[in-house]
Amino acid sequence: MVIVACTPDSEGLGRRLAENLQARRVAVESRAFPDGESYLRFADVLENQDLVVVHSCFPQQDKRLMELLFMLDAAKELGAKRTIAVVPYLAYARQDRRFRPGEVVSNTSVGKLLGAVGTDTLLTVDVHKEESLKAFKIRTINVSAMPLLAEYLKSLNLFQPYILAPDKGAADHARLVASILGTDYTYFEKHRDRVTGQVVTAGKDVELDGRDAVILDDIISTGTTIANVARIAKSNGARKIIAACTHALLVGNAEETMKRGGVASVIGTDTIPGVVSKISVATAVAGSLRQLM
Amino acid sequence: MVIVACTPDSEGLGRRLAENLQARRVAVESRAFPDGESYLRFADVLENQDLVVVHSCFPQQDKRLMELLFMLDAAKELGAKRTIAVVPYLAYARQDRRFRPGEVVSNTSVGKLLGAVGTDTLLTVDVHKEESLKAFKIRTINVSAMPLLAEYLKSLNLFQPYILAPDKGAADHARLVASILGTDYTYFEKHRDRVTGQVVTAGKDVELDGRDAVILDDIISTGTTIANVARIAKSNGARKIIAACTHALLVGNAEETMKRGGVASVIGTDTIPGVVSKISVATAVAGSLRQLM
Repeated sequence: MVIVACTPDSEGLGRRLAENLQARRVAVESRAFPDGESYLRFADVLENQDLVVVHSCFPQQDKRLMELLFMLDAAKELGAKRTIAVVPYLAYARQDRRFRPGEVVSNTSVGKLLGAVGTDTLLTVDVHKEESLKAFKIRTINVSAMPLLAEYLKSLNLFQPYILAPDKGAADHARLVASILGTDYTYFEKHRDRVTGQVVTAGKDVELDGRDAVILDDIISTGTTIANVARIAKSNGARKIIAACTHALLVGNAEETMKRGGVASVIGTDTIPGVVSKISVATAVAGSLRQLM
Repeated sequence: MVIVACTPDSEGLGRRLAENLQARRVAVESRAFPDGESYLRFADVLENQDLVVVHSCFPQQDKRLMELLFMLDAAKELGAKRTIAVVPYLAYARQDRRFRPGEVVSNTSVGKLLGAVGTDTLLTVDVHKEESLKAFKIRTINVSAMPLLAEYLKSLNLFQPYILAPDKGAADHARLVASILGTDYTYFEKHRDRVTGQVVTAGKDVELDGRDAVILDDIISTGTTIANVARIAKSNGARKIIAACTHALLVGNAEETMKRGGVASVIGTDTIPGVVSKISVATAVAGSLRQLM
């Protein structure tokens, strides 16, 4: 039998997932010691169970990653038969290779650490680059939230929506969403300076006259890239501009930055809980989990 | 040859340690991505080197622990022959067993994770309980800062100092310091409620009339325990009261709490950098490292 454990942080998604799987939920007691260290406790017996641990690793990423590792390790020590880590937002996925000599490759390390605590399967949603999971020695599943995003976008009745990917990495997502919506897409060229971290998006002629634009990405972090693309879309005649993503990190003034760039609204999923998290990935995640059972 | 890498966080101790070992220092470039993830880069070649990574894990513990794991993992990937983690303050050392069923045992997990990234040796200073290191499958060294604290206390010319350990766990430290100072010591009975986290120190008759008191512990966290002992010491006739420890975490209003309890001054070491870190553990750590080479 499968049981679903979730920390208060990932309560919403955990609850929806358990309902979807008709699985019993195990509460995880979670608090901070006065010095800031995390205290975690499974409030139920795990022996001989297939345990799904739902724990998204959005900021503070390090705290949530350590909590995840502690829980997975303890679950096995407490007798769980299999542990399936459902980490809708996987932290450190973007540092997946050595861009400059001497750099740490955090993504590979995270994979190694998950293996060390006996994780049987890692399930994540729209990881930044699918290839990055190849470095993991454990079984991994990458669920796409794009069909759910596409369905949601359909319900908005946009006018001849044009799907814009801010960079080549997001082009596959844009293609998929465009095909579901029965519309077209394109992507922009983005360059990141590996020393300064600065990002530049090259302009591009896109025929948008009067059409609505959907800027689609896996992650929206500071919103700067989205704002740059929105400005290009505006100057190409876009009517309404929507930003849609799986993981709405929305660091600092991201929403303000995008608004100033001309973005009318932002849509994200519950891989990161927040006000723009209008879509739940629970059905998609449950579907993949069912195939594991 | 041994080289010493240290992040800006542990710069002071790292520099003193490298000087002491007459070892080359490797800078570690360290910054945060806009979303808060850590970026780390060794600014030198590590191939075939014995690498000492100096990185104390005081708050924010999770961030520093992940950084430590990333660095140790990368060091091996970058060709380091041996990696020696010098972690003067080891986080999560206090959750070293299951006090209530279902709890995570973070200390054991930390040991497992250090092993997973190929750490050859972990050197720490005054770990909360020496036995807790037995769960680690890698080689561990626990250096005592107590002789250095004793020497410092000597220089203060205290009046017939009485060494007070706030609980039985600190009694060995108190005995050692008392013997170096040629004076006496005692310890108190402390009870922690595992559910509420509340701590109570039992009163005790200690003949302190006019003598100075040194309350000695491995860690000072919120300062509540120290303040409780200070009040008992005061009511037993203590003159001046000093609090001394290896790791001055000083969470929140710890200094104010201790001051109100009657503590005149607080002394700590550079395992955690800060204003009360008057003593460097560099010589003691270097001494232990030399035996490894």
